[in-house]
Amino acid sequence: MRSRHMGPDSGRRPEAASQAASDRDACFEVGDDFRRFSQKDDVFCRSFWDPEVRSDRSDMFYETYRTPRMTWRSADGFTQRDYALRNASWHVTDIFAELRADADRREGFLDPYTAVREGPGSAVEVASPQEMAREVKHAARTLGADLVGITGYDERWTYTHAYSRETETEKPQEVTGELENVVVIAQSMDRELLRTAPSALSGAATGATYSRDTIVLLAIAQYITNLGYRAVASMNDAALAIPLAIKAGLGEYGRHGLLITREFGPRVRLGKVFTDMPLAHDRPVRFGVREMCEVCRACTEACPARAIAGGEPSTHVHNRSNIQGIRKWTTDAEKCFRFWANQNTDCAICVRVCPYNRTYDNWPSRVWRWVSGTRLRRLALWLDRISGRGRRLAPRRWWNAARSRYL
Amino acid sequence: MRSRHMGPDSGRRPEAASQAASDRDACFEVGDDFRRFSQKDDVFCRSFWDPEVRSDRSDMFYETYRTPRMTWRSADGFTQRDYALRNASWHVTDIFAELRADADRREGFLDPYTAVREGPGSAVEVASPQEMAREVKHAARTLGADLVGITGYDERWTYTHAYSRETETEKPQEVTGELENVVVIAQSMDRELLRTAPSALSGAATGATYSRDTIVLLAIAQYITNLGYRAVASMNDAALAIPLAIKAGLGEYGRHGLLITREFGPRVRLGKVFTDMPLAHDRPVRFGVREMCEVCRACTEACPARAIAGGEPSTHVHNRSNIQGIRKWTTDAEKCFRFWANQNTDCAICVRVCPYNRTYDNWPSRVWRWVSGTRLRRLALWLDRISGRGRRLAPRRWWNAARSRYL
Repeated sequence: MRSRHMGPDSGRRPEAASQAASDRDACFEVGDDFRRFSQKDDVFCRSFWDPEVRSDRSDMFYETYRTPRMTWRSADGFTQRDYALRNASWHVTDIFAELRADADRREGFLDPYTAVREGPGSAVEVASPQEMAREVKHAARTLGADLVGITGYDERWTYTHAYSRETETEKPQEVTGELENVVVIAQSMDRELLRTAPSALSGAATGATYSRDTIVLLAIAQYITNLGYRAVASMNDAALAIPLAIKAGLGEYGRHGLLITREFGPRVRLGKVFTDMPLAHDRPVRFGVREMCEVCRACTEACPARAIAGGEPSTHVHNRSNIQGIRKWTTDAEKCFRFWANQNTDCAICVRVCPYNRTYDNWPSRVWRWVSGTRLRRLALWLDRISGRGRRLAPRRWWNAARSRYL
Repeated sequence: MRSRHMGPDSGRRPEAASQAASDRDACFEVGDDFRRFSQKDDVFCRSFWDPEVRSDRSDMFYETYRTPRMTWRSADGFTQRDYALRNASWHVTDIFAELRADADRREGFLDPYTAVREGPGSAVEVASPQEMAREVKHAARTLGADLVGITGYDERWTYTHAYSRETETEKPQEVTGELENVVVIAQSMDRELLRTAPSALSGAATGATYSRDTIVLLAIAQYITNLGYRAVASMNDAALAIPLAIKAGLGEYGRHGLLITREFGPRVRLGKVFTDMPLAHDRPVRFGVREMCEVCRACTEACPARAIAGGEPSTHVHNRSNIQGIRKWTTDAEKCFRFWANQNTDCAICVRVCPYNRTYDNWPSRVWRWVSGTRLRRLALWLDRISGRGRRLAPRRWWNAARSRYL
């Protein structure tokens, strides 16, 4: 795993000037008309309260995750065995999401995790924020994190409000700047499963990664708590994960609106732990993603919902599910989600076709990544296209792999 | 990952003759005086009800897992940060263990897991038990299992009774032969952490693996349930895992009383899912472990408690925590546990020093494994000894690795 350079603004909350510098570092273009986001406007929340998004299809979409269907489709990738695996993969993260449902909590998705045991009265002495950051990262990897970075709390990315499923309206945000540091983790998703996208089968990559994410976040939060500091584990709730991950040096922003990491491309799920432990911050990394996405349209062209931006970064917003006042590539979340609802599972075509979606455990991919960061990026793109890397694998062929591998 | 040969007794419950043959295959020597084991006699259970095992030290031993200590030892490997990581690593498996404590359940340790959602009314059609076994193994690996094998239910290894922590006495066994097949999984433990054994730090390898074990077992049980069959996930409860793992082809029995796998040596934790789904069985594997253990005494000599057999396999039992009527190397569980209690954490010295404790992702280790299975095994043993592989790593050096790796 590669090293990350420690920033000079270690442990302090960025002030206006250093925030501007840090934003430039991260290629963030935040305008004066920027407005913080309320989780209520997230398209998944809207699919409960907003008739513009909610439909019989979206209700059915969620239903397939909870209740076995009475009749199974015979379409390859959408049969009983595909849903059986997908739903099983979500099982652990579902358990935690429902653990405190009686308190109007949906932990990991709408609310931070609370299943953390009380810590000791005494806090360990922190020799230096740099030293402690190294120790926390070492521990986090040992507890199962694939990638770890650290950044400062930034109110801009924190949701103004949480969302209550019970009342279908806003409720107070629990995470505040008192926890001034954020440990951000990225967990890699199963590449073979994602090759079958779109399919219910490929949704097993989502669920399995959320389940891993859940247990790793809980363990990191418990570890920091055991050292005598406060720690709040958060998965999809509380704050936008992508800007935090970029600032923490985990990767760059891609055209499809996803984080692209050096190690797994866009094939990750994110999580974060907010803490008051003094920790040095990482700095954003650049490896040519922005320049590549400027010339690549693989995701835009492959998206069946036509939800992904094809042009230059802009401040255009499609609807209330987009964040306002940031110049960037912005996906139409309504179109995206409608496609999910219509096919009864999540979609990851944009992840599958992304040229960065590789395993980098082999030298050709590492050479490819190096070339993709140079002026020869169009050559890299062409090589990727003719290689057939991004083509869909028929789900039944994924299942048949069992035949050859475990005979 | 290597393939496993499918046995001829696929899906049927072994009858007397085929059981004898299968026992020979597995090198099991079960005598007429064999008696099934009650979990109450497990040394961990005895450390609650049996004054011969219970002591202030053993109470304190458990206490360190639950409650932060008021004062921390300064001994390397037993400081606050070591316990912080160890206890965090146990956190997820602890949550599940305590989830139904009000119903006198300690799931994963004394009782099978119950956190499985109801399945559909209809079961998938199983083309053949062979076919289904391949599919289940493929799914299990995708859900995070490191090794998977399948064997038949065998009453001999099932505890006669479960143990109730509340009443400190026996309670009925829940798992029965109606679930006639057993999917056995092995999860690898962190080798670097185990290099520091004995230490509280090395106990993090135990906890982290149990946490992974828990979520993988739950996911596999949910997957089988979603296919319309019954499935019960079990970790340390319900049955002896080692004989099931050997019959399922995951490895051989070692002198230290642990399973030795080809892939990770003794560095694994086991789990199992009992099911009525028709599944073909695997057969035991042999790669020279028994012959190696006959000439090797690395664990016997390294054990500070002198708890590990130094002689030939025998039917001698040290106390009621040993199973009766089987000729094998038998560890003195009382001595072993007393050492754990005295040092306030689990011990894994026998795992650390075992010559099979390697990562086999490099060719020298694979060559070593091959040689260890030939008549040159004494050479292999000598090479292992002079290599210094099994030496203890000072815990502070494990922490310091953070310095070099994440600068």
